[in-house]
Amino acid sequence: MINVSILTIGDEICIGQTIDTNATEIAAECTKIGAEVSAHVAVRDEAEQIKSELKRLIEISDFVLITGGLGPTDDDLTKPVLADFFNDKLEFRPDVLAHIEELYEKRGLKMYERNKKMAELPSKCEALPNEVGVAPGMLFETEGKFVVSMPGVPPEMRSILRDSVLPLIKKKVDSADRVRVYKTLMTYKIYESKAAEALGDTEEILGEATLAFLPSYKGVKLRLGAVAESREKAEKIIKKAEKKIKAKIGEFIVASEDKPLETIVGEKLSASGKTIAVAESCTAGSLGKALTEMPGSSSYFLGGLLTYGNEAKINLLKVNKATIEKYGAVSEQTAYEMATNVREIFGADYGVGITGIAGPAGGTEEKPVGTVWISLADENGCKPIKYVFGEKRDVNRERSVGSALSMIMNKLKNE
Amino acid sequence: MINVSILTIGDEICIGQTIDTNATEIAAECTKIGAEVSAHVAVRDEAEQIKSELKRLIEISDFVLITGGLGPTDDDLTKPVLADFFNDKLEFRPDVLAHIEELYEKRGLKMYERNKKMAELPSKCEALPNEVGVAPGMLFETEGKFVVSMPGVPPEMRSILRDSVLPLIKKKVDSADRVRVYKTLMTYKIYESKAAEALGDTEEILGEATLAFLPSYKGVKLRLGAVAESREKAEKIIKKAEKKIKAKIGEFIVASEDKPLETIVGEKLSASGKTIAVAESCTAGSLGKALTEMPGSSSYFLGGLLTYGNEAKINLLKVNKATIEKYGAVSEQTAYEMATNVREIFGADYGVGITGIAGPAGGTEEKPVGTVWISLADENGCKPIKYVFGEKRDVNRERSVGSALSMIMNKLKNE
Repeated sequence: MINVSILTIGDEICIGQTIDTNATEIAAECTKIGAEVSAHVAVRDEAEQIKSELKRLIEISDFVLITGGLGPTDDDLTKPVLADFFNDKLEFRPDVLAHIEELYEKRGLKMYERNKKMAELPSKCEALPNEVGVAPGMLFETEGKFVVSMPGVPPEMRSILRDSVLPLIKKKVDSADRVRVYKTLMTYKIYESKAAEALGDTEEILGEATLAFLPSYKGVKLRLGAVAESREKAEKIIKKAEKKIKAKIGEFIVASEDKPLETIVGEKLSASGKTIAVAESCTAGSLGKALTEMPGSSSYFLGGLLTYGNEAKINLLKVNKATIEKYGAVSEQTAYEMATNVREIFGADYGVGITGIAGPAGGTEEKPVGTVWISLADENGCKPIKYVFGEKRDVNRERSVGSALSMIMNKLKNE
Repeated sequence: MINVSILTIGDEICIGQTIDTNATEIAAECTKIGAEVSAHVAVRDEAEQIKSELKRLIEISDFVLITGGLGPTDDDLTKPVLADFFNDKLEFRPDVLAHIEELYEKRGLKMYERNKKMAELPSKCEALPNEVGVAPGMLFETEGKFVVSMPGVPPEMRSILRDSVLPLIKKKVDSADRVRVYKTLMTYKIYESKAAEALGDTEEILGEATLAFLPSYKGVKLRLGAVAESREKAEKIIKKAEKKIKAKIGEFIVASEDKPLETIVGEKLSASGKTIAVAESCTAGSLGKALTEMPGSSSYFLGGLLTYGNEAKINLLKVNKATIEKYGAVSEQTAYEMATNVREIFGADYGVGITGIAGPAGGTEEKPVGTVWISLADENGCKPIKYVFGEKRDVNRERSVGSALSMIMNKLKNE
């Protein structure tokens, strides 16, 4: 098995000011090609700490992938620290400078003296081209192990990872004695414990495969894994388990790869040729945003109305004033009119209405914070569904979007 | 200085399926009270790896804060591993069981045998109450150092961190010989290099303080830091530097604490008594979502129109058909009408219009992907601004929201 460790350098990560999404992305990409990611480590901008972690990680891994600390300012330590670590010195690289100058000219930016310093690299490293920025990646080889340093800016990291690093890891994975493969099944409308119960005795289902449950507001992910001498053999083990799982809970599975529910719904909408419009109150655009994350969403998403106040619900969305007065803005009746009216206003096949109390204020005994009515209308009207989520505003909004997406998915599956 | 390390246990983190937001949140909270977070480490669900990391982290830290691996299923290793690590055994805790039973009854859930096992804890640990879930936290003391284990479910982690862990760390920080304090200044309308240039010689400005630049699509954060014998002294050092920074670039500073631009804008709108409505095309609800993240946003956010297609722009938003035909949907003229019309339709003080090409398709030579027109109208109309971002759809949408928020902030500052 080829082992990868990820080392993130930066005070902003350590003190919790920035989320380390780079580590997650690198790990996911390495996992996808069959490498085993055994650790993520984040350390401060401190030379001694960086060196001691690096030493340790080289011992336990085939690849150590470093991000961060490659900028032009004084707190960017990675280059001198790596030179020191490998008993090396910085040397000027004319080809790297040429690339930097070209990029600056293209962007119409002024070259400062400190930018030129970015063309100095440790002499023992191979420079890895950075298509989208000035700081090149660096590749060191030491006793059959590899250390790679990449910039912390996500698009720059991504470019170097994709163009230079993943191909190298893939080559090693392909000639390794064992490989680990994962496959994720996306479910909807089913809770973790219900899924576990429906599956029953997993030993019989899994064989040599492993299974993990990953719950989220947009459905439970089922992650299958297998280790074998080759990718093909591992995939075969997984395929067998997948088949058995689908036989038991296939109706809840919406995709056989790890992708967001909004993408699955978007693809399904796109393929169906149907159109949709949304009327959002407490979510105020969150569903519209989710439905348009996918490129090409204009083929199915016609638009929406964000009717936060009652006046907008009445004047723009044409909800009956009497409905709101009699039943309230958060009610089955209002949700019904929101969905059917927005469908009609936009001339869409489907209309979604969401009205609820996201909180923290606005709750009553009868309608506590977290009460949300969601409805999905087609030409036959709709049946609004009542949810009672929890007390947290952001979670209530997120769960509302997840439930609306599930509802759309359900409709598309049954058409 | 009190040193904290964070250890996350879980395959899903290691392989990049889940982002480790817990580590970020714990780090931010510990930093806030003056502790020094020196490392984040994430490892797989493997007993030997967990134990060896734990041993190492105890050596370099006063507190090791662990999350994950406390669930009721077989892959949850933390409890037996900790018992083993501390030469301890699991013992049944009647008080913990009582809490679990109470919670299950309250939620109307069935108690399974495996749930009862959650009341077994290592005998040497102190159980830390979990207000929102069944798995208690665990506190171990070993040679003056502390090891804390918390569940990986964020709200459960949060509850234990806040109620039991932070108070304990705070006590140690208050009696430590040195403390590190940070303060973040939020800027808008200024790029990193421009900010650095405007500040000039930072040595003179900073004195004993440190300064880091953290750029994002919603503005550059300036993080000041200082180490001193007491919180008061460190704060004094920072205050001095802050004053000098404000004298140089005060016009770009919108808040003296680390919070999102949407919150700053929301607070400012709320205080101003003004109302706002949005007309979104390519962002399709992203700005509405951002403006309503804050509780109480109904006092200023009246609603919006998501006009993804031209038909919706013409019929609902009353943009002149001739305008779109002559200048295109992505144009200064369309952006002008979007902002002024949505303002009028909702009867708001301000109207925002966003129309652009998020990509990846839809670009032309004249209007490449990433071209976005944004406008903010008041009673005097508006002056749309053209942006040319980049090629990435999600980044273009994010930057559009950031720019619109900056524009609103600017208007509010100058009223």
